[in-house]
Amino acid sequence: MSDLSNNSIPRGFKFGAVKAALKASGRPDFALIVADVPASAAAAFTSNRVIAAPLIVDKEHLSATGGRVRVAAINAGNANCAAGEPGLRAARATCEAIAKEFGCREQEVFPSSTGIIGVPLPAEKLIAVLPELAASLGSDSDRFSEAAHAILTTDLVEKMAFARLELKGGDRTAREVRIAAFGKGSGMIYPQLVPHATMLVYVLTDAAIDPAVLDGYLRAAVDVSFNRISVDGDTSTNDTVLLLASGASGVTIGEGDPAFEAALIDVCNSLARQIVADGEGASHVVELRIAGAASDADALLIARAIAHSPLVKTAWAGSDPNWGRLAAAIGYSGAQVDPARFDIRFGNLQICKDGGRAPEFDEAAAHEYISQHEFSISIDLHVGHGSCVFWTTDLTAQYIHINADYST
Amino acid sequence: MSDLSNNSIPRGFKFGAVKAALKASGRPDFALIVADVPASAAAAFTSNRVIAAPLIVDKEHLSATGGRVRVAAINAGNANCAAGEPGLRAARATCEAIAKEFGCREQEVFPSSTGIIGVPLPAEKLIAVLPELAASLGSDSDRFSEAAHAILTTDLVEKMAFARLELKGGDRTAREVRIAAFGKGSGMIYPQLVPHATMLVYVLTDAAIDPAVLDGYLRAAVDVSFNRISVDGDTSTNDTVLLLASGASGVTIGEGDPAFEAALIDVCNSLARQIVADGEGASHVVELRIAGAASDADALLIARAIAHSPLVKTAWAGSDPNWGRLAAAIGYSGAQVDPARFDIRFGNLQICKDGGRAPEFDEAAAHEYISQHEFSISIDLHVGHGSCVFWTTDLTAQYIHINADYST
Repeated sequence: MSDLSNNSIPRGFKFGAVKAALKASGRPDFALIVADVPASAAAAFTSNRVIAAPLIVDKEHLSATGGRVRVAAINAGNANCAAGEPGLRAARATCEAIAKEFGCREQEVFPSSTGIIGVPLPAEKLIAVLPELAASLGSDSDRFSEAAHAILTTDLVEKMAFARLELKGGDRTAREVRIAAFGKGSGMIYPQLVPHATMLVYVLTDAAIDPAVLDGYLRAAVDVSFNRISVDGDTSTNDTVLLLASGASGVTIGEGDPAFEAALIDVCNSLARQIVADGEGASHVVELRIAGAASDADALLIARAIAHSPLVKTAWAGSDPNWGRLAAAIGYSGAQVDPARFDIRFGNLQICKDGGRAPEFDEAAAHEYISQHEFSISIDLHVGHGSCVFWTTDLTAQYIHINADYST
Repeated sequence: MSDLSNNSIPRGFKFGAVKAALKASGRPDFALIVADVPASAAAAFTSNRVIAAPLIVDKEHLSATGGRVRVAAINAGNANCAAGEPGLRAARATCEAIAKEFGCREQEVFPSSTGIIGVPLPAEKLIAVLPELAASLGSDSDRFSEAAHAILTTDLVEKMAFARLELKGGDRTAREVRIAAFGKGSGMIYPQLVPHATMLVYVLTDAAIDPAVLDGYLRAAVDVSFNRISVDGDTSTNDTVLLLASGASGVTIGEGDPAFEAALIDVCNSLARQIVADGEGASHVVELRIAGAASDADALLIARAIAHSPLVKTAWAGSDPNWGRLAAAIGYSGAQVDPARFDIRFGNLQICKDGGRAPEFDEAAAHEYISQHEFSISIDLHVGHGSCVFWTTDLTAQYIHINADYST
């Protein structure tokens, strides 16, 4: 991991953001990532069957180009979803105008939208500010963070992650490869990407990687990062992760490079945890470590049942060590469970042993432990060798206020 | 439907309730239903794989007696779940003491518990008050409602339902048959009975019905009532529905009696809706009518996804007509969906047409409609003939307070 600086931004990309008057707040809401030349691209999208217009367009475009993207165009304030034909026309019109502005093919434009569902996107607002946006582009860290800021909706903070590593390319010369990512997401976060929310994530590298190889790296990284988080269990219609490789480092990477794979997973994991930590109304960030399940799939069933249980999540909000709610969620998860054998630990505190209250259970200590902002819960099923790690939040009155307060 | 009166209580049963000091409030927390002679019995239990000690005992007992119950014993304040061997011993000790008190077989006692999970049941408290409880029994409506009151936990009101019908028995003489039910449940309500919470429901009739036949009636009624409700999506470890038939009316009922079946469903439906209406923190009761799904199972997938979406439920809490959240839940439900064809109505108001905002969508009218305490949402998928009706609640800050407020 490295921090935001001009030296952490992958070479071969420019960034920019402007105000297109989509956000009621009047804040910047339209960002571009522009590759100097068409970049190698791999993407993962929501598994929701109702998907937003830009995702339909993205899939067409990636298929038409064989995985090449010149411009990623991201607007906040409107999800352009469930907006019928007008929504699709708006997405296409935006791509057409961007292609004209940058002298590329329309199919090399990758649009993304996030915000309210069911309201047609006013493409004309985006198109009107394109010249201003094009003029503002830059490859420095300030432009990068402006883009990261513009795509936020209910997020309280920007989410960014970086990695730098020395890799030898085809000519055996060690050169620096950079990976940088930014993303957004706070509510409607339970990305189930195929290979996952409205979570939007853009991961950039200056390595040179073939699109098919890039796709393999992306799927592996997404599966252990964005597919392991949930804020509210609501899988969005717009979730998108885009990985672009510019090649500007001069380092070519083939399949199975362990250092690149590890660095990419680190960046994705960092961003995934930042999204959970900024979950709507969240006052606790919880790591779930499931072990001893019949299979990894069973371990995930248990993690998801716990992460989506309103009773468990409200207990966390109150730092209530009511582990019986965890036992209930374990039981209805659908996973294979021996009710007389499962153990629960809060950090290093044994809470439940063999399906019952542990002899050393100390309610005050348990309460103190889960009063921390971040804590870890370990569950061992003792039925097999399946395991997983999952990150989620509590459910607070603030979440309700954020999502229920409505003014006509 | 009829109301609570001495004439609405099925003959052949007595009721009573006392304080056993399990509830911290000191309110009555131990109730009995005692059949004059062993009653024909059918039961449905939670599908949770972690089940409470009394359910383990109930299954053994019903199996041993072939479906006969003399005494149903229900305590609130402690769920006797995840309490290991001590929990099982406590349930058995209670049954043994009750059998002795009433001169019946231990296997003719049907125990139920509701309350906190993970704390062994103090059986000695129940056993100590048995003589007082036995002395208080009566067959009148006051005793019935005292029993209904004692089993409540976070419930705000008692839940009762009644039906009376004229049926001809084997001797062709029309006689009155009564059905009465009481139950509890407010949180951890998403009963998935095999054939469903901690919902506890006791349905009584004075018809004479063979246990195997009774089981068929119960399964059919449960499937369209208690298996069609959710407050929070948390399936309890203790959910139980017990149907007892005393035979005291003199009317014998065989398989497939449409009048009895309809009356039983009416009673179960009434109780199921009362449970939803008293859902923890609920400020809105919502009926979901799903039609045009590929199958009934698909319709249920959609109803459940909506009923369990925190974003949909918080929007309802704010009377926010944000139907895009409904569209997202429809999309991730797992059901077959054509994103360009589904329609959504709030009552008679067309909200979404062909997957997009309806031309006649009137936000103010939609907001006004769902500002009502009870409202109905209809969704037509236009892909098949599957349908279902489902009842649920909104998710409010009050729900969070009820479940998060913890004092050491």
